[in-house]
Amino acid sequence: MLNPNLLFSDIGNRLAGPSGIQELMDDTGEALTTHPDMRMLGGGQPAAIPEVQALWRQRMSELLADGTALDKTLLNYDPPGGNPLFLEAMAGFLKRECGWQVTRENIAVMPSSQSACFLLFNLLAGDSATGKRRILFPLLPEYIGYANQALCADQFAAVLPHIEERGEHEIKYRVDFDRLKITSDIAAMCVSCPTNPTGNVLTSDEFIRLRDLARQHYIPFILDNAYGHPFPGVIHGSFRPSWEPGMIFSISLSKLGLPGVRTAVVVADPVIVKALSNMNAIVSLANGNVGQALLTPLLEDNKLLSLGSDVIRPFYKQRSDFAKGVLSAALGDDVPWALHAQEGAFFLWLWLKNLPIPAAELYRRLKARKVLVIPGHYFAFGLNHDWQHPHECLRLTYSQPQAIVQDGLEILADEVKQVFAV
Amino acid sequence: MLNPNLLFSDIGNRLAGPSGIQELMDDTGEALTTHPDMRMLGGGQPAAIPEVQALWRQRMSELLADGTALDKTLLNYDPPGGNPLFLEAMAGFLKRECGWQVTRENIAVMPSSQSACFLLFNLLAGDSATGKRRILFPLLPEYIGYANQALCADQFAAVLPHIEERGEHEIKYRVDFDRLKITSDIAAMCVSCPTNPTGNVLTSDEFIRLRDLARQHYIPFILDNAYGHPFPGVIHGSFRPSWEPGMIFSISLSKLGLPGVRTAVVVADPVIVKALSNMNAIVSLANGNVGQALLTPLLEDNKLLSLGSDVIRPFYKQRSDFAKGVLSAALGDDVPWALHAQEGAFFLWLWLKNLPIPAAELYRRLKARKVLVIPGHYFAFGLNHDWQHPHECLRLTYSQPQAIVQDGLEILADEVKQVFAV
Repeated sequence: MLNPNLLFSDIGNRLAGPSGIQELMDDTGEALTTHPDMRMLGGGQPAAIPEVQALWRQRMSELLADGTALDKTLLNYDPPGGNPLFLEAMAGFLKRECGWQVTRENIAVMPSSQSACFLLFNLLAGDSATGKRRILFPLLPEYIGYANQALCADQFAAVLPHIEERGEHEIKYRVDFDRLKITSDIAAMCVSCPTNPTGNVLTSDEFIRLRDLARQHYIPFILDNAYGHPFPGVIHGSFRPSWEPGMIFSISLSKLGLPGVRTAVVVADPVIVKALSNMNAIVSLANGNVGQALLTPLLEDNKLLSLGSDVIRPFYKQRSDFAKGVLSAALGDDVPWALHAQEGAFFLWLWLKNLPIPAAELYRRLKARKVLVIPGHYFAFGLNHDWQHPHECLRLTYSQPQAIVQDGLEILADEVKQVFAV
Repeated sequence: MLNPNLLFSDIGNRLAGPSGIQELMDDTGEALTTHPDMRMLGGGQPAAIPEVQALWRQRMSELLADGTALDKTLLNYDPPGGNPLFLEAMAGFLKRECGWQVTRENIAVMPSSQSACFLLFNLLAGDSATGKRRILFPLLPEYIGYANQALCADQFAAVLPHIEERGEHEIKYRVDFDRLKITSDIAAMCVSCPTNPTGNVLTSDEFIRLRDLARQHYIPFILDNAYGHPFPGVIHGSFRPSWEPGMIFSISLSKLGLPGVRTAVVVADPVIVKALSNMNAIVSLANGNVGQALLTPLLEDNKLLSLGSDVIRPFYKQRSDFAKGVLSAALGDDVPWALHAQEGAFFLWLWLKNLPIPAAELYRRLKARKVLVIPGHYFAFGLNHDWQHPHECLRLTYSQPQAIVQDGLEILADEVKQVFAV
């Protein structure tokens, strides 16, 4: 029998309560299993792309056909920083195909980008011998999954964007360098690129200025490439971030269609790689092996880059254009709206200017109509003041089949018009 | 460029430094990949059991043969507490085959027992509104992987065992109820059963007394069943722990031959299940799907229980008897030694009485001779005083092929004799 007044620890209370990412993941999972009639415009679920799924079926068949490959993949504990042969292959790939000066000592396999960031944020920031240290997010809105990852209070700081309005229905967020100050409490900067939720991609100029600021202050610059470079490569412009010492890049297998194997790769200085590996041993013991086994032979040439440029990126570009077309037509000019420029990732970021109800209430009304979206306020954190803008925004995924996306966006537009009409 | 004097946070320093579990996992992984000549008597690696490996190959073939099963397994994010269909199947299995009164609300899927314990220990204990709360390990030695999982200082407490000497070469650790006091700072008790590293299994009487103590104090009783009930079922006696409300059981797929898929199951009151699920969303986003997909149809009948009783348990019993025979013969009566009674799990726990050097030094000498073992002191923690006993102990795995185990144990005996001869 448990104490009816069971108390959790301070950290337990921070992590175990309701959170945006937990609501999102509960919604996502239930939509895919117990509520298949839900129109899923919520999660970061990758799309079912036939060529990509065929590749993974083929690779799994190869593991099965090999006398011992699948057996070893299932049976063995690898070192907590990843399989040494995978690390070699990954380092070779990044050096050869991306031109990054890395060796296996720069690579750590992690159970996911999510857990890599959890470990990084709490390795570098929080209470420390020199006082409170903070992770700075220089360009809000930022990924919902970071919002609750701090183990200490007041461990995150963030900077509001400059909102560039580019005509009636398009915006782009830009780093507001006038507001961006690296104070002595800042332990690291972190940007997701392409940004989840907005689809924003840093300009080359912004990337260089952030890099230089990090250099000047000797702090790591963390770039979360889950949707970007080198794979799945869903960046529509020409800019590609390049890793160099002092930076920490996170790369995920999830958006290659493999979220179910929970595997990500961190590229960093060896001192960070070793620290993450040691932390992973304590928190997770070892990584899953299936993702590494599926990927390893594909790292021998540029196949994964081609898969991104020839298959995955065009797929999402077409879906993005389609979704944008449906939503534009459905919203028309009756309500004030704008989408963030579609520079990468799998999302539409919709700003409903002066929305009469909070986005959280719009989320609830849409869920009742079997349309799942994510309200924008979850993507704003690290602030010590209110910020109205994200309460007028929604993140919308277009990775589900087009009929579902179309239905969902049309219901959304209908609901939004009703809200504005009251 | 990183600050050459890069500072980690307090929590970072706790988790990122060297630890026993990290040394063990680094050793294990390297032995399996880059140092295949190492005789691996160290890790908790399950053995390659042909019938078990054939089962997983068959299940993977079935996932591939099904039109969409593998695709869905790889592509989908499930809810952070696990796939709802797996949760139903697991609850059905535990109710039907084990007689536990559980529903899906009592089950959480976690990325591993290791991460389940990390979350549980820090959910329940650490700094809190009512002061420091602690996890109590009532029966040392206990699992090396727990030792560094506390996010706060002084978060663990432990009780020394009564060492029952049963003849010249056998011991059994018993809970010392005279020393076991549940003070108001104790948030929960935790025992691994069978115990990693000793192979000890709680007696039915000990289990009931611990359960009753936990009940009296309204605290959870955590039982880590990674090697035990209901699967892989490597318990040689007749006692089987039975879950009831107030208890938290952890069950792992790893020792079914699936460590590479990183999947465990926690059985607990719904309030704990929901808290773990919420924490998992923040720390890991979602679980891997492969283990759940492989297991689900096997939960429809008693197949996994039979696999344990008919295949896995006899396999380890035979290996245990073999290893014990080799070691007894090799050590003979020249040095003072005893093994813990072999009641379950995959280990020999060797006590070298009055060993002239610390077990950690013996580990280093054996590693130089290409034999990996784990020194006993890593399995003692939560103490505020020295305890010499585990510095005279080693944990030895016998899951590797018999020729390797024999070689390794004979080299070990030779080295031990040299140590005592000096």
